[in-house]
Amino acid sequence: MDCMSLGTRERIIRSGLALLTEYSFGAMGLDGLLRAAGAPKGCFYHHFGSKQAFVAEVIDAYDAYFEERYVRLLKDTAVPPLERLDRWMLEARRGMARHGFRRGCLVGNLVQEIGPHDALLRDQLHALVRKWERWTCNLLQEAVDAGHLREGTDARLLARLFWGGWQGAILMAKLEGRARPLDEFRVQYLAQLPHAPGMPAARAREVC
Amino acid sequence: MDCMSLGTRERIIRSGLALLTEYSFGAMGLDGLLRAAGAPKGCFYHHFGSKQAFVAEVIDAYDAYFEERYVRLLKDTAVPPLERLDRWMLEARRGMARHGFRRGCLVGNLVQEIGPHDALLRDQLHALVRKWERWTCNLLQEAVDAGHLREGTDARLLARLFWGGWQGAILMAKLEGRARPLDEFRVQYLAQLPHAPGMPAARAREVC
Repeated sequence: MDCMSLGTRERIIRSGLALLTEYSFGAMGLDGLLRAAGAPKGCFYHHFGSKQAFVAEVIDAYDAYFEERYVRLLKDTAVPPLERLDRWMLEARRGMARHGFRRGCLVGNLVQEIGPHDALLRDQLHALVRKWERWTCNLLQEAVDAGHLREGTDARLLARLFWGGWQGAILMAKLEGRARPLDEFRVQYLAQLPHAPGMPAARAREVC
Repeated sequence: MDCMSLGTRERIIRSGLALLTEYSFGAMGLDGLLRAAGAPKGCFYHHFGSKQAFVAEVIDAYDAYFEERYVRLLKDTAVPPLERLDRWMLEARRGMARHGFRRGCLVGNLVQEIGPHDALLRDQLHALVRKWERWTCNLLQEAVDAGHLREGTDARLLARLFWGGWQGAILMAKLEGRARPLDEFRVQYLAQLPHAPGMPAARAREVC
């Protein structure tokens, strides 16, 4: 197999995604990356101009992965909006559990490390988070329009608080090696939303 | 100046603290560390047996720094308990602002990177976070005992949620390069506490 083999480029990006949600960029050696991708040594600069260009492509791949989850979970209008948010969190929780709580969020990992020092990548990460916040804001606004949350709810603020809290919960789940921080955040976030009078507070579902 | 000069060891640890709250362990080269500490090349292994042993000492130094803040801010019984928590957050916010929101929390940085892969360091970080959670739990329980929070408040749960949320807010402040995520978390965390009937909700103070 050489660098031009079908799918080599995609395999390297996929391996980058796995490694960069688990380790740091600094700790990720190119040798380990290519080994994980089953690609010959020397393939890296054949496909990617630089480490920075590579990370930018990994972020794009993460973006595409979230877009798929967005359409499947957050835009599923057959399900009440707050329950969609709960399903989103539950699916992410299952994903973390599958990897023994070693893998976190690509954005969280990269922000800690290179965020402020690489303006290009930082802007790319920031744009991604702002998009996620918009999705969540729209979802919360849907819950307001459906009469589940109070009129006048600040959906944008609550969306930003969601993503900050969720990133923190992922970090704690990594530290503790278990789901508890995710579950506690999930239950608390839904409970503290400003539910409309007469509406039962959104309750996090039991974890399967 | 040689490796044995007075304070060289301490200066290296202090530089490690600054570098590891800003960059990753993987990105921190020993040359840069020693340069920042104004210590001659080759001093590192004279003072520290390994990179791991060095990081363990940096975590200890961070621990000592938090102990000082704990005694000065969280144990200051002249101030109502929830206001102490607010002051704690405000001081941390000022610290981040002073460094242009480039430096985050040492624990958050290290957890993302090495947490799950180095059992010794992970346990050390976990013990540190558990201690902070205990401090916060005691503080919240004081607020219950003083009649500011409702009887039956789960102070341990709320303390864990505090630290997860705060870590996430720091991460977002780093990403955005500004205080807004810290301020929003601060205001929201205090407002959502289960205030005792008749007690005004704890209000975050205006930022100076």
